[in-house]
Amino acid sequence: MRDFSNDHSALTLNTATLGHNVKGRGAGWSPEQVIDLCAELGLGGVVFWRREIGSRAAQVGAHARQANLKVAGLCRTPFLVGPLAPRPRQAMLDDFEAAIDMAAGLGAEVLTIVVGGVEPGSKGLSISLDHVADSVARMAPIAAARAVRLALEPLHPVYGGDRSCLVSLKDANDLCDRIDHPAVGIAVDVYHVWWDTSLAAQLVRAGKDRLFGYHLCDWLAETRDVLLDRGMMGDGVADLKAIRQAVEAAGYQGLCEVEIFSAETWWKRPPREVLQTCIERFRSVC
Amino acid sequence: MRDFSNDHSALTLNTATLGHNVKGRGAGWSPEQVIDLCAELGLGGVVFWRREIGSRAAQVGAHARQANLKVAGLCRTPFLVGPLAPRPRQAMLDDFEAAIDMAAGLGAEVLTIVVGGVEPGSKGLSISLDHVADSVARMAPIAAARAVRLALEPLHPVYGGDRSCLVSLKDANDLCDRIDHPAVGIAVDVYHVWWDTSLAAQLVRAGKDRLFGYHLCDWLAETRDVLLDRGMMGDGVADLKAIRQAVEAAGYQGLCEVEIFSAETWWKRPPREVLQTCIERFRSVC
Repeated sequence: MRDFSNDHSALTLNTATLGHNVKGRGAGWSPEQVIDLCAELGLGGVVFWRREIGSRAAQVGAHARQANLKVAGLCRTPFLVGPLAPRPRQAMLDDFEAAIDMAAGLGAEVLTIVVGGVEPGSKGLSISLDHVADSVARMAPIAAARAVRLALEPLHPVYGGDRSCLVSLKDANDLCDRIDHPAVGIAVDVYHVWWDTSLAAQLVRAGKDRLFGYHLCDWLAETRDVLLDRGMMGDGVADLKAIRQAVEAAGYQGLCEVEIFSAETWWKRPPREVLQTCIERFRSVC
Repeated sequence: MRDFSNDHSALTLNTATLGHNVKGRGAGWSPEQVIDLCAELGLGGVVFWRREIGSRAAQVGAHARQANLKVAGLCRTPFLVGPLAPRPRQAMLDDFEAAIDMAAGLGAEVLTIVVGGVEPGSKGLSISLDHVADSVARMAPIAAARAVRLALEPLHPVYGGDRSCLVSLKDANDLCDRIDHPAVGIAVDVYHVWWDTSLAAQLVRAGKDRLFGYHLCDWLAETRDVLLDRGMMGDGVADLKAIRQAVEAAGYQGLCEVEIFSAETWWKRPPREVLQTCIERFRSVC
């Protein structure tokens, strides 16, 4: 297991930690300001959300490279299925391709897929997962041609209805088996998987080639809002050291992306204070 | 699979469906009123919460038997671990025993265990699950001596932090294997397990002898409150027919207990209307 106690060069900022993924929230910094602060503080990478980038992908990507900071990823595709997916399906696929374009323009290695919930009119997860498999298989060659990898992110089962019919690492592995394309893998986020006693075994099953990302935050024992009340690493009940040990035992040696949706706590603090806290916690409790 | 289209004799009311588990909520009917309505409408059983019974267990139990209605269960033990468990541990064990006494007094077959969340100061689930195993193993002979069975209820992983470190049927099976006592089994609630693609396999693993109860409601696609916004059967995304098929394929032929925590919808409607809706949905979509 890597020793991070005096090294945070693997730490990556997902700008959701500054509230930038939700309109009207957070510090409102430009992508360039965020890049400059991450570079100054010695982080290894940054992950943006599409709403921050607009039509400036190439420009922002160039600024990051100039600052010697990796754009490690982009959030995210549209929901592919479920009540929140764009309709008709072609509109969803067009938006999926636009997301691939933006990732390629930024020079981002990975585009995250949040798959969406249960298809209206259906029951259970299986029909929706079939649709997800179809759509991702269709987009995988397009992504690969632009050197973008697609990371399926299983979300916590609390989102199963509306945001993600993909709710466990096991199901993500099953989906990868079905799609069977080297550009399609998995992002593992402690918030979504900390409770899963099958995690270590499913991480080994995923293996190095399929693990495209590892995301950090914490699950607060008393979570007031499942969407916007994530905890800073160390403030919750997830066993972060044990999870990282399992992730690395499965072969992952990549960046560790901190992604804290926290409307009432961390989004109200200055970005520099938030990042400094992330660094301190990354070195001590992750 | 049993045909319920013209038969709701297996339908059982958990009084949480009338709001009686939360102070100041619901219709405020006495247990006797609830028993009389359930009997009149042809239900097979009723499950009470301790706060409704107080010191009147024998009296309420006698009323139910007179009405030819089974008291199928009692909710519930105290939390055994986690931030909401009684302290010190002996106080928790005393309250656990009081719950067994009440179940025996009522003539209730099953006492439900909601195990509680992550032990303060610990991380992850394993330490807390160890404590749960110890406490349940200690209480199992006491329950058995009073002809009460203990049903471990895995809750949805959203409650992992504060209310239940037991979050899947797999973990409940593992816990039963460890405790290895015939008076200890599992209650399966669709709200908590609908998202689990390992469910059918874990139901088979549990088998008839370990399945002590089957609970019905629905998971609303857009759930506003994970505690008090459960859906009426048919209004959500759980595949209720498929789940019951799997439950029965595993050998369960017992009562089906409707348990809907719904502060803003069903708790505001008259008990007779709620029960009539439960009957109609039980016959058509469960």
